Amino acid sequence: MAEEKKQEVEEELDEVETTENDSNEKEAEEIDIPEVSEVEELTSKFNEMEDKFLRARAEIANMSNRNKNEREQLVRYRSQDLGKKLLPAIDNLERALATEVTDDQGASLKKGVEMVLESLTVALKEEGITEIKAEGETFDPNLHQAVQTVPAEGDVEPDTVVNVLQKGYQLHDRVLRPAMVIVAQ
Amino acid sequence: MAEEKKQEVEEELDEVETTENDSNEKEAEEIDIPEVSEVEELTSKFNEMEDKFLRARAEIANMSNRNKNEREQLVRYRSQDLGKKLLPAIDNLERALATEVTDDQGASLKKGVEMVLESLTVALKEEGITEIKAEGETFDPNLHQAVQTVPAEGDVEPDTVVNVLQKGYQLHDRVLRPAMVIVAQ
Repeated sequence: MAEEKKQEVEEELDEVETTENDSNEKEAEEIDIPEVSEVEELTSKFNEMEDKFLRARAEIANMSNRNKNEREQLVRYRSQDLGKKLLPAIDNLERALATEVTDDQGASLKKGVEMVLESLTVALKEEGITEIKAEGETFDPNLHQAVQTVPAEGDVEPDTVVNVLQKGYQLHDRVLRPAMVIVAQ
Repeated sequence: MAEEKKQEVEEELDEVETTENDSNEKEAEEIDIPEVSEVEELTSKFNEMEDKFLRARAEIANMSNRNKNEREQLVRYRSQDLGKKLLPAIDNLERALATEVTDDQGASLKKGVEMVLESLTVALKEEGITEIKAEGETFDPNLHQAVQTVPAEGDVEPDTVVNVLQKGYQLHDRVLRPAMVIVAQ
């Protein structure tokens, strides 16, 4: 009866070994222990496999979270490149609007440009791209690039942005281009 | 000896059962089989766990591929929304350029608008947004929207686009807006 059982156990173990390839090292260690129970060995293999399964399940949960975050970031900042490339166009439209016009055709053209500028600004805003507040704000090196300083006069506090030479833009919390400013000191 | 072994096996099984919670149904089935070997049961549990591990590993590989594809799609089509919103601005700039100007200020304004249009077109192209070919092409309902038909005359083949009323645009293979066209019949 005991002999029969032993053989059965060994057959079971053979089966297990053919399906389990990466625990040979562990088996080699266990061989040194005398009279090791086949059931103990099998239990150890099971525990090892369960551990691997639990780790894999944890990895699946991690991957799922990581990928969700990545997708959210990609969507949130998806307009960064195109938005950045549109800024010079907006600068140029604003510059064009500074042109004085003297006749009806010029006025009509200018009206058209104004509408385009408005529609571009709205499109950028819908994607989260907005102008950086600058004039009258306290100078912030993260948002403003000081290209000139002037003495603080009258009731202007030092470190105040007194003039904007080129508008800055940000996409949500990311600065696409800092505002180029003159700062009172 | 056989008795001692049996007890050992039972102890092992208790341990296994505390770490294995979702195979109760299977155990219930096995109880009906008389004199089931503990080793057989343990082996069956091991095989089941190994199967779960292999499935989890396959799921990890699938997730990884799926997420890579999703990211690629998100990047490839990221400019779809902003690009679509820019199309009316481009239409308006083109319309503005059709204005006749008579003096230097008007000409200067027009020159500025031309440069803006050029820079917008380049920015869109870099993001994969291009004008849909229409005039002279064979009418394609996926790319063109026929708003009028005219009789095919001279050497114009039937089903040819003879005039474009509003330009169409596509982002890679996706149509952002079909071209509005007149088709010869």
